Amino acid sequence: MKDGALGIFDSGVGGLTVVRAVQELLPSENIVYLGDTARVPYGSKSPETIRRFADEDARHLLGRDVKAIVVACNTATAHALPFLQKQYHIPVIGVIEAGVEAVLADRTAMRIGIIATRGTIASHAYQHALALRRTGMMIVEQSTPLLVPLIEENWLDHPATTMILQSYLQPMLDKGIDTLLLACTHYPLLVPLLKKMIGADVRIVDSASTCALHLRNELERLDMLASQDRQGILRIGLTDLSDQFEILARQFLHKSPPRIERVEL
Amino acid sequence: MKDGALGIFDSGVGGLTVVRAVQELLPSENIVYLGDTARVPYGSKSPETIRRFADEDARHLLGRDVKAIVVACNTATAHALPFLQKQYHIPVIGVIEAGVEAVLADRTAMRIGIIATRGTIASHAYQHALALRRTGMMIVEQSTPLLVPLIEENWLDHPATTMILQSYLQPMLDKGIDTLLLACTHYPLLVPLLKKMIGADVRIVDSASTCALHLRNELERLDMLASQDRQGILRIGLTDLSDQFEILARQFLHKSPPRIERVEL
Repeated sequence: MKDGALGIFDSGVGGLTVVRAVQELLPSENIVYLGDTARVPYGSKSPETIRRFADEDARHLLGRDVKAIVVACNTATAHALPFLQKQYHIPVIGVIEAGVEAVLADRTAMRIGIIATRGTIASHAYQHALALRRTGMMIVEQSTPLLVPLIEENWLDHPATTMILQSYLQPMLDKGIDTLLLACTHYPLLVPLLKKMIGADVRIVDSASTCALHLRNELERLDMLASQDRQGILRIGLTDLSDQFEILARQFLHKSPPRIERVEL
Repeated sequence: MKDGALGIFDSGVGGLTVVRAVQELLPSENIVYLGDTARVPYGSKSPETIRRFADEDARHLLGRDVKAIVVACNTATAHALPFLQKQYHIPVIGVIEAGVEAVLADRTAMRIGIIATRGTIASHAYQHALALRRTGMMIVEQSTPLLVPLIEENWLDHPATTMILQSYLQPMLDKGIDTLLLACTHYPLLVPLLKKMIGADVRIVDSASTCALHLRNELERLDMLASQDRQGILRIGLTDLSDQFEILARQFLHKSPPRIERVEL
């Protein structure tokens, strides 16, 4: 069981930011990544459809004998995590719990801005999880549906990206947020631009690296960590292949991906 | 046969610009519209995947006893039209032929700019079709992948949309195009902004209204027009339903859509 791979899935290649963080923290773990690029994005689709897609993704990974599943997609976590956890008998870990823990790790954090896809925002999953843990917080949510397309175009410091971010963020900056939670696994690529825009006083929490930490803690607790004496292997399967996805995969992983195979769900 | 409905499909709701044009031109025709919103967009996906999806869309419409199929999606036309025409024994009409005819209707058009999704541009379908018909033309193609997300956000005259269009169009304006072909059924919504930006000297051809004209000619030629003494009915099926899609449907149709049903492919 300890030697089984970790299954990590996302609607597309954005979840590779989670893979990168997991590889850094847990280099001995084998990883099977599934990106549902044929049906990307999930963020603008309905809860029922997202749940159906997430279930098909999880089933595919179970067929590859994984020991645990990481839902590296905020939208799928928001709408499908409890469903998947009930359905399957291995640990299923999402990105939301981790992001919430990371926000609350700062005991003074009281004014939280959250940016995410339309689907994640509509679920109010973060707002709900935060409100359960700490009372009296001000939470401002903003759906930012144009960020994924801009990131997938690699317009990471284009003036249009700055302009669009400005119009998304200004209302929450005006409200004096102390923490900005990036509730989409694509968004870590915007951190350099965001830092320039929002200044040093606002702490940025991204759900990719916090998810890796949360995963390590869970595997430790369940005594499921792989033995440390090996180098983990990464396999990537996508439901649609294209040059563009390969370029993006490289960008999200910060290195050349292994050979990517096309998979059917 | 004449009384059968027209089947019209698109990856999403953009193809409703074609429906609107068809309703204006052929008010007696019944229309069954299918939007594959669960898997939208097609424009960034691979030719094989687009062909598979288009085939599933066409099969669904055939199950609804349509007399002809209109592929109201440039990407699907570019990659799947010949395949669908070979596969099925009813007329299958795409948007590309119509757009090309409309461009060439102006005998002086010689410097053509084409904007479209990444998938349509990569197919070079328009470039090829134009080059076959008129020699010596200069054709400049530009993939404009951010326009669909901007339109779906309804940012039709946002400063960021102007800025992004500027950076897409300036290189072709510098080359002195006389015609701008909007090779995506979403783009007609940008016509007011485009007119302000490119001036009166550049003719704009959109593939939605030209497709309706082409369809009428084909139905006439094949003696398949519905009798004129009735009011056609529109039915809309989407593979995923959400409030956002309903808002968009209204916008593309310029009126309230009929009750939309969710369909499975």
